[in-house]
Amino acid sequence: MAVVVSLDSERGKAALAGLSALVDDDLERVNQVILQRMQSPVALIPELAGHIIAAGGKRLRPMLTLLAARMCDYRGNRHIALAACVEFIHTATLLHDDVVDESGLRRGLASANTVWGNKASVLVGDFLFSRAFQLMVDDRSLDVLRILSDASAVIAEGEVLQLITANDTATSEQAYLEVIEAKTATLFGAACRIGAVVADRPRVDEEALTSYGLNLGIAFQLVDDVLDYSAAQTTLGKTVGDDFRDGKITLPVILAYRRGGEAERTFWRRTLEDRDQQEDDLAHAIELMQKHACLSDTVARARHYGAVARDAMGIFPDSAEKRALLDLIDFSIDRAY
Amino acid sequence: MAVVVSLDSERGKAALAGLSALVDDDLERVNQVILQRMQSPVALIPELAGHIIAAGGKRLRPMLTLLAARMCDYRGNRHIALAACVEFIHTATLLHDDVVDESGLRRGLASANTVWGNKASVLVGDFLFSRAFQLMVDDRSLDVLRILSDASAVIAEGEVLQLITANDTATSEQAYLEVIEAKTATLFGAACRIGAVVADRPRVDEEALTSYGLNLGIAFQLVDDVLDYSAAQTTLGKTVGDDFRDGKITLPVILAYRRGGEAERTFWRRTLEDRDQQEDDLAHAIELMQKHACLSDTVARARHYGAVARDAMGIFPDSAEKRALLDLIDFSIDRAY
Repeated sequence: MAVVVSLDSERGKAALAGLSALVDDDLERVNQVILQRMQSPVALIPELAGHIIAAGGKRLRPMLTLLAARMCDYRGNRHIALAACVEFIHTATLLHDDVVDESGLRRGLASANTVWGNKASVLVGDFLFSRAFQLMVDDRSLDVLRILSDASAVIAEGEVLQLITANDTATSEQAYLEVIEAKTATLFGAACRIGAVVADRPRVDEEALTSYGLNLGIAFQLVDDVLDYSAAQTTLGKTVGDDFRDGKITLPVILAYRRGGEAERTFWRRTLEDRDQQEDDLAHAIELMQKHACLSDTVARARHYGAVARDAMGIFPDSAEKRALLDLIDFSIDRAY
Repeated sequence: MAVVVSLDSERGKAALAGLSALVDDDLERVNQVILQRMQSPVALIPELAGHIIAAGGKRLRPMLTLLAARMCDYRGNRHIALAACVEFIHTATLLHDDVVDESGLRRGLASANTVWGNKASVLVGDFLFSRAFQLMVDDRSLDVLRILSDASAVIAEGEVLQLITANDTATSEQAYLEVIEAKTATLFGAACRIGAVVADRPRVDEEALTSYGLNLGIAFQLVDDVLDYSAAQTTLGKTVGDDFRDGKITLPVILAYRRGGEAERTFWRRTLEDRDQQEDDLAHAIELMQKHACLSDTVARARHYGAVARDAMGIFPDSAEKRALLDLIDFSIDRAY
């Protein structure tokens, strides 16, 4: 099976830091905006939001906005607040997703809902989502407002779709791709597109950056799905087997189910549909995935979307920012090796 | 104690229908927009949203936008979509509030979260919230976007504040008023203000309508709090004693706690803080409230805010719409008699 390096690991963070060096100053300003705008007289809000935001996520999505804007020769300041806005939307969906998934760990810390309860997670998520729209209104661009309100609706649809298909081993690869495109990749696409919008670039550039982000997002999520079945995860923030315990149907499972015999399918139905799991089941699940090359083939699928993302960037002239965005594709996928 | 007529009762609906006759056509168009924009290829979304929206709420908030716009001599169509948008925001907060309150009944039907689960309620709420912003973006007014994104942030803050003070019998009347102003009255104020904005009225008219809506909203919520301890509720949609069972600290409780002796305070702490409730406790709570005139005095407080709302309208010339808005104050309060 693939050796896995999480983006949250020391090695992962160092590699990402190299990529982000171009926008380090911008990223620092984004962090300032985030810290400033998550404040509220209601102390629980910055406390809970700080737990998930300030604890230092990867800031991958804001970084996309920053790099895209700079690649498009944007010289102003609008991209800073908008990058913060993208991170707020992402964080709001994480908080609401925690309620949904009952996942025990998020970014290496106890998830907000296990510490403060579902109620607080939902409401602070709503607050951050509202803050994101306030930031957009301050920016005064109806184009940006449209891009991110459209993205938010698609994300919510994707989350509901995932909820419906949850624990259903009959989920097809196609149906799964629709879910991750909606719930994960759409925001990657929107984050990139905003870079072209603030730089006032023609529609074709907007579309190229959207395509880059969307396909990068799919690749990124697929590798995340692989990482959840990796033994290397034990030394990292994320718990191994979170997806398995939640009965989540991700691509490695879809492949294993379709490639396995009836006894194996019975195993998958018992553990993921009925959620009847015993101590050795996770290890057995990983064994089955290795037997059918499901993890490496999921990475191969990710590589396909990475290639599409790379070609989308073909219309832009060479620049340090473009190279960083291209490196980000390799980086997202190479986490799995 | 006060005899209570719920807005959801037949008598309440008939009275409200009289008030809304002026905007019946507009309201029908609002309903069309609501039905149309809550659609999604993900079937669970219109199913769940329809349960709470289309089941026929009072449409009180959209009606405020419609009446305010018409009173301001607005002749266009923008108020239709924006009224729908206000209802979407309201519905999203209801869905998220259901998760929070674990309330058993909402509008006379089983609440969405008991039927579809917390997860679906949260996510469909997110979808409706996003739809609201899409409707605003279609409208293209940054003023409206600012008013409703600001309102949304304040609502979320109010919900979190309520969460923190929940089950705390030491909550002061002042702290409680801050909560209901944020979580309920702010959207009433914003709904009214939008009427002046679409009509391009001067700031002073916007402010007058905001003040009217805000104070009406406080009065409305206080009467709602009274209704929750009314025996008349048993024949209506809402369950009697929902607030009591949830340990919610509303104004009738705050007054009863402060006006009672130590034995009574022990009772309130046991039932609302410790949530240790026995069969006769609700009846005893109502007895204590009657003994200290807490229900009628809460209505008296509501009447005060109603008077402020009425005076805020003083700057507008007489019109059928203005009279309807003023009648709405009396109507909101007279539900308690």
